[in-house]
Amino acid sequence: MSDVSVIGLGPMGAALARTLLQKGLRITVWNRTSEKVNPLVAEGAAFAPQIADAVSASPIVIVCVANYEISHSLLGTAEAAAALAGRVLVQLSTGTPQDARNSETWAREQGAEYLDGAIMATPAQIGMPDTPIFISGVEAAFRRSEPILTILAGNLMYMGESVGAASAWDLAALSAMFGAMFGFFHGARIMEAEGHPVEAFGSLIADISPVFGQMIKYEGTVIQTGSYDHAQSTVKTCMGTAELWLKHAREAGINSEFPTFAMGLYTKAKAAGYENEELAAIMKVLR
Amino acid sequence: MSDVSVIGLGPMGAALARTLLQKGLRITVWNRTSEKVNPLVAEGAAFAPQIADAVSASPIVIVCVANYEISHSLLGTAEAAAALAGRVLVQLSTGTPQDARNSETWAREQGAEYLDGAIMATPAQIGMPDTPIFISGVEAAFRRSEPILTILAGNLMYMGESVGAASAWDLAALSAMFGAMFGFFHGARIMEAEGHPVEAFGSLIADISPVFGQMIKYEGTVIQTGSYDHAQSTVKTCMGTAELWLKHAREAGINSEFPTFAMGLYTKAKAAGYENEELAAIMKVLR
Repeated sequence: MSDVSVIGLGPMGAALARTLLQKGLRITVWNRTSEKVNPLVAEGAAFAPQIADAVSASPIVIVCVANYEISHSLLGTAEAAAALAGRVLVQLSTGTPQDARNSETWAREQGAEYLDGAIMATPAQIGMPDTPIFISGVEAAFRRSEPILTILAGNLMYMGESVGAASAWDLAALSAMFGAMFGFFHGARIMEAEGHPVEAFGSLIADISPVFGQMIKYEGTVIQTGSYDHAQSTVKTCMGTAELWLKHAREAGINSEFPTFAMGLYTKAKAAGYENEELAAIMKVLR
Repeated sequence: MSDVSVIGLGPMGAALARTLLQKGLRITVWNRTSEKVNPLVAEGAAFAPQIADAVSASPIVIVCVANYEISHSLLGTAEAAAALAGRVLVQLSTGTPQDARNSETWAREQGAEYLDGAIMATPAQIGMPDTPIFISGVEAAFRRSEPILTILAGNLMYMGESVGAASAWDLAALSAMFGAMFGFFHGARIMEAEGHPVEAFGSLIADISPVFGQMIKYEGTVIQTGSYDHAQSTVKTCMGTAELWLKHAREAGINSEFPTFAMGLYTKAKAAGYENEELAAIMKVLR
């Protein structure tokens, strides 16, 4: 017997397994190809050539593969599925809330408890105190797994029993994060076009990122309360910035996809009559 | 004579004038319509009915109108232009780097010194210690104006003598900020669709915004150094997140403009062969 089994040894799965090993846990690993298994065996992991044996080896089974379809094709064989009964299956592959709900239903049919998690980090960040993992599912299963999961990510956020929650929060948070990144890339093109250093621009954004966070928090409150009047930043004012991005892109001859995307949102909000409302009124044309 | 003249009393111009008044400076104001002048006169400002007289009243002339075209139509009359000689014209209207360069050339022809600034704040934030203003132009003119400008914005950032710099940094920083906002709005739609509170989502983003800042800083270094290999976050991995946004949008029946925009960038980067390079390789398809 081991403490945890880890199914899938891609960069993330291997980082999970290695972090648990380094904390002194007994782990069993399985991977579709064996060359990824060998380094972990050398570090002390047990290897189960059959996936059903890997499942049987531990009370907690972590799966981290490319997507839910692959996970289901691996665990859905009669032997592997039978082995799941009485264990906690912790699904850390990436997917949608609906994937999580389907997966929970299936796991329960096999007599397993089920947790769905989303790792907001790179493999190099696994095991660090600030690394965030969203997790959702039945609370009793979460409490059984919490000591293990806390080793993997110091900032473990339990989002409740609704099993799609971890994926929903993850996809939503990544949306804000990547939005900032796409906007940053256009800003970096402005910097390059005007002869300013992109590295210094990145440092500036890092310095003022808490200000962005506060602005976003404010717009979130506006959306929650539906109070789009008494605007601090109107759709019209913000649209003015998008018009300047487009004007600059023409003057400097640079790509204009980001400002064009922004302008599309503002144009719809204006056409809907929200020009003098708070920026967050854009939500009303996204619904 | 007064210390500063303020041309344009929209919400931002009025905030600038009021903040200077409250610090005990003697100011002269001008606005195209007089009803915006009266409250400031009641608070101690001098009013010049003719714009040329407002320009003549102070060694430092701040202009804050909707755009550079309006500014030029106001200051471009023979009387106003003649009055500019020997003064520092501080242009705080919003525009592009090219607008700033044209404006500097014109101001020099009138014998004026010229500074171009960009206010990254709402009127309510004027006069606060953290409020950022980017400023650029000849350093001697900046040093003459610095005590006044520091009253308006505690975080005064002098970006050098290249006069387009303030606008370039402003437009670039706003690009990252609004990108985060657009991504947040899609995230808020995910929250709404899955039954989670948008206000709590905004708070989470505020809490983790420094992490976004660090990620952006890292990508900025990658762009500056051109070292897209040895990826921490590959284009392929990040594209996987965009695929999940699209899958979720289909499953939940929500707007998919933001994930579609993202997918467009990734698809081009993949087609160009950057799939296994760092996310910042998207810059190469934006050039």
